[in-house]
Amino acid sequence: MLQERPARIAITPGDPAGIGPELVERLLADPARLGGAQVRLIGGGPTGAPAGRPSAAGGAKALGDLREALRLAAAGEVDAVVFAPLNKSSLHLAGMAEPDELQWMEGVLGVRGASEVNVLPELTTSRVTSHVALSEVAAGVTRQVVVERGLLLDAVLRGAGHAAPRLAVCALNPHAGESGRFGREEIEVIAPAVQVLRERGVDAAGPFPCDTVFVRARRGEFDGVLTMYHDQGQIAMKLMGFDRGVTLAGGLPFPVCTPAHGTAFDLVGTGRADLGALAAALDLARRLAAG
Amino acid sequence: MLQERPARIAITPGDPAGIGPELVERLLADPARLGGAQVRLIGGGPTGAPAGRPSAAGGAKALGDLREALRLAAAGEVDAVVFAPLNKSSLHLAGMAEPDELQWMEGVLGVRGASEVNVLPELTTSRVTSHVALSEVAAGVTRQVVVERGLLLDAVLRGAGHAAPRLAVCALNPHAGESGRFGREEIEVIAPAVQVLRERGVDAAGPFPCDTVFVRARRGEFDGVLTMYHDQGQIAMKLMGFDRGVTLAGGLPFPVCTPAHGTAFDLVGTGRADLGALAAALDLARRLAAG
Repeated sequence: MLQERPARIAITPGDPAGIGPELVERLLADPARLGGAQVRLIGGGPTGAPAGRPSAAGGAKALGDLREALRLAAAGEVDAVVFAPLNKSSLHLAGMAEPDELQWMEGVLGVRGASEVNVLPELTTSRVTSHVALSEVAAGVTRQVVVERGLLLDAVLRGAGHAAPRLAVCALNPHAGESGRFGREEIEVIAPAVQVLRERGVDAAGPFPCDTVFVRARRGEFDGVLTMYHDQGQIAMKLMGFDRGVTLAGGLPFPVCTPAHGTAFDLVGTGRADLGALAAALDLARRLAAG
Repeated sequence: MLQERPARIAITPGDPAGIGPELVERLLADPARLGGAQVRLIGGGPTGAPAGRPSAAGGAKALGDLREALRLAAAGEVDAVVFAPLNKSSLHLAGMAEPDELQWMEGVLGVRGASEVNVLPELTTSRVTSHVALSEVAAGVTRQVVVERGLLLDAVLRGAGHAAPRLAVCALNPHAGESGRFGREEIEVIAPAVQVLRERGVDAAGPFPCDTVFVRARRGEFDGVLTMYHDQGQIAMKLMGFDRGVTLAGGLPFPVCTPAHGTAFDLVGTGRADLGALAAALDLARRLAAG
């Protein structure tokens, strides 16, 4: 892969009351961690936010920094954005109307259809439905969205360096519905979507019963798992140690990555906060920007 | 706990074409594994079933043995039943009309309301809904069933020797619904059921977001997790190694236990089949019969 220049990445310290600022400081002080990326720090400095707890001031600072980073990326001045952990209470205290930062970023950028992708070194997941009631999940599992999110997952894995990603597509129902005995979505929606994905060149297989697919993925049989609902993937990813993972805002015009862990108010200033996930977020952003 | 006589346990070899017969033979040859139980072998001997694959003959033999074991337990001649793995295809080839052996046993015994309980040394789960389409799960989560299954889980843990079991109750919706933003079952159904359980002396807490509750349980914070649907528990249990676990047919008049793994046709006769789960099934049946 020919790379003409180093990836240019904007990074923000996230909520100033959390561990974000100290993690960013440690990351930038360690050039070996940057992988040749040209990193531009947005924000920093005193904020007036009380340390170690949510506040409107902390949320406003975090959103302001992130807005500036997104502006730079949209203007082509950087190739990707990394942000340190946000705190949802702070964001809402600061007046964020959207339920989460992903939808807030959609609004800032004037785009739609963004979708969370969860990345561990050994496994990446994307999902067909996300923050909706379980009773609304089945209606949200449409052939079109399964195909869209499968293509997104494939693209993310290819962008991150997988030449030929192997995707498993989860079933919706227990035992994959047992040939229609309890639920027909596998037959009527998911299997046809897998077929479309294969016709589009994606190495997708399934639908597989979701209680064994993660055991198989952990063994190395798959690079990505496409889940039908939030907890289907998150139960597995959190047991696999997703706190060390990276959340990618998939479907935006450029890569936006953040550590999967939170602001960890209890660790602020102790020096015990782990740099691993933020470094992994930067590394993924760099690879996606280059790919 | 005063135990007047050893627990009397009927054991069946399960599907004759699978690893059940050799596991039972190895178990009975190892008195140290029996924990003082008085074990009565049901069935055994030649069956006419082809080895290593499903067949009507294998299914009929497995059901016949299990029916006899249940009869002995219902008659008070044994205190509990253990059966080695069955094969669902064999059972259906043999004419079993019910979707699974649990419902078949309900029919044989003339009872209702049985419910699967999954037991690992470190964690036990029971569920509010089981083999139903995901679209029907929310309607199946009623206060009454949450309470019933919570009481069942508590009783199983106490019977197995936990003096004061700590139960976590799962939420139904992602992020436990985020205060009703996506789903109100936590507020209207599950939290009130947890309150009822506490009033009945069960140390139950929740509802908790289900993507972190298993991480907490694995750390030792809970002895049991009550799940709202099949895959909510099974994704976690299978990642935690449930193949070495035990499935208990909860809600029957006496303990009925079986290994969580299947007939493992590919391992038949190789000597590589692991005795651990069958031994654990016998141990659990023995403890429940004594408790």
